[in-house]
Amino acid sequence: MKFERKVNYYETDKMGIVHHSNYIRYAEEARIEFFNYIGIPYKSIEEKNILSPVLGVKCNYKHSAKFDDILEIDVRIKDWNGVRITIEYIIENKETKKIIAEMETSHCFTDMNLKPLNLRKKYEELYNVFMKNMQN
Amino acid sequence: MKFERKVNYYETDKMGIVHHSNYIRYAEEARIEFFNYIGIPYKSIEEKNILSPVLGVKCNYKHSAKFDDILEIDVRIKDWNGVRITIEYIIENKETKKIIAEMETSHCFTDMNLKPLNLRKKYEELYNVFMKNMQN
Amino acid sequence: MKFERKVNYYETDKMGIVHHSNYIRYAEEARIEFFNYIGIPYKSIEEKNILSPVLGVKCNYKHSAKFDDILEIDVRIKDWNGVRITIEYIIENKETKKIIAEMETSHCFTDMNLKPLNLRKKYEELYNVFMKNMQN
Amino acid sequence: MKFERKVNYYETDKMGIVHHSNYIRYAEEARIEFFNYIGIPYKSIEEKNILSPVLGVKCNYKHSAKFDDILEIDVRIKDWNGVRITIEYIIENKETKKIIAEMETSHCFTDMNLKPLNLRKKYEELYNVFMKNMQN
Repeated sequence: MKFERKVNYYETDKMGIVHHSNYIRYAEEARIEFFNYIGIPYKSIEEKNILSPVLGVKCNYKHSAKFDDILEIDVRIKDWNGVRITIEYIIENKETKKIIAEMETSHCFTDMNLKPLNLRKKYEELYNVFMKNMQN
Repeated sequence: MKFERKVNYYETDKMGIVHHSNYIRYAEEARIEFFNYIGIPYKSIEEKNILSPVLGVKCNYKHSAKFDDILEIDVRIKDWNGVRITIEYIIENKETKKIIAEMETSHCFTDMNLKPLNLRKKYEELYNVFMKNMQN
Repeated sequence: MKFERKVNYYETDKMGIVHHSNYIRYAEEARIEFFNYIGIPYKSIEEKNILSPVLGVKCNYKHSAKFDDILEIDVRIKDWNGVRITIEYIIENKETKKIIAEMETSHCFTDMNLKPLNLRKKYEELYNVFMKNMQN
Repeated sequence: MKFERKVNYYETDKMGIVHHSNYIRYAEEARIEFFNYIGIPYKSIEEKNILSPVLGVKCNYKHSAKFDDILEIDVRIKDWNGVRITIEYIIENKETKKIIAEMETSHCFTDMNLKPLNLRKKYEELYNVFMKNMQN
């Protein structure tokens, strides 16, 4: 799925470019839209009293982005085993097609006390949706 | 009470100065330290299942601040009636003594469902601490 | 002009609602879209080596907003005299129509060294666009 | 070097824990203090018209942190070859000694147009300070 996002003024820093921490936030936005897209909105997950904390983040910055640039974020599931899901993001400048950043985040699913859940066992429906949408 | 705070790199924007939204965050930090100082840490308030949402913010920006500047924030209670508390902040550059911003925030106290509480009636002890620390 | 904006997960705080500092950022986004709308994109202003720092912010919070809420922000020029522009924002929950916040920001225009400019004298074209778009 | 940092209220999200994007900002704060500590403040680098953009970030989240927790961040240079510097961070909860996150950031040095510089060739003094402070 492709998610489009304009760079906000307040996301720039004194170098005149997007502060690198914001890409983690862009990835979250893209991931949430991706979850909507595959039919399991984040909110519907949280309504089942499931949280989805982040286990890890990797980001390689290739080119800088500037205020008002339109970014196009390609999101897909890289890996999923019922316990841990890894999501990949390629962030491009929509106009120049330059790759701005390549990212990966991994997540687990937990109950409201942050105790890990195995979705394959406890929420097979969710498990199947992620499995069906994993890239080949 | 005076609260000291160095400006972070990620708080600047492409103008090369602190983005104006961050002053609202500096005020929150200063307010929380002020609550510690007068003996009712925020955490102890939340442990009583009391929240303190913000009702209003006013900020006048006088001079810009830059990366690595040390800000000195003078915090005091301007007004308090058991329901609504108004807190004043004067933010100075510690070195140049220039006033960077003058701010005011007002808050109420609520239960966990964000229903307003009258502290004078329900938590007289808290009421009294704020009253005692209100400026003359 | 009305600007629409979905609440991001990372904009919530431990109260489960949008952290109040983010409304200042939403207003900036709305203002920038408004400037696009009236034909003088922020970027085109900065390309003239004009900056537009914030002089003041006022915000009254009426109701809280939550993750995934869609906010509708009504933006208009409240006052403009060639030196200082005051912009008004009414932020509503698009679905419930509840007013979330009422805001006002004021700004001046400066050169790259943050020295104030009188647009009526130096950039009459910009002056006129703002004047034409001021509410009656 | 160890850098201490209290968690701010506005850094939490609706899960009640620090939003994962903030660790990238904590690492920046720690890195800047580390640069002060080894005698080459960021500001002095920027005054030489050298910028230091981030090339990559890796973060593994081990435990969550909460509002008001005191974090202790151990910073050190992992690798440095005159062109690319890799910095390691271990973030602990100061009280419980639990490891909260393990991070790594890598950076290059550039001129004001973001063109890469080889510090070994052009700024030997800076090169040597980093080399001297690299862990064995």
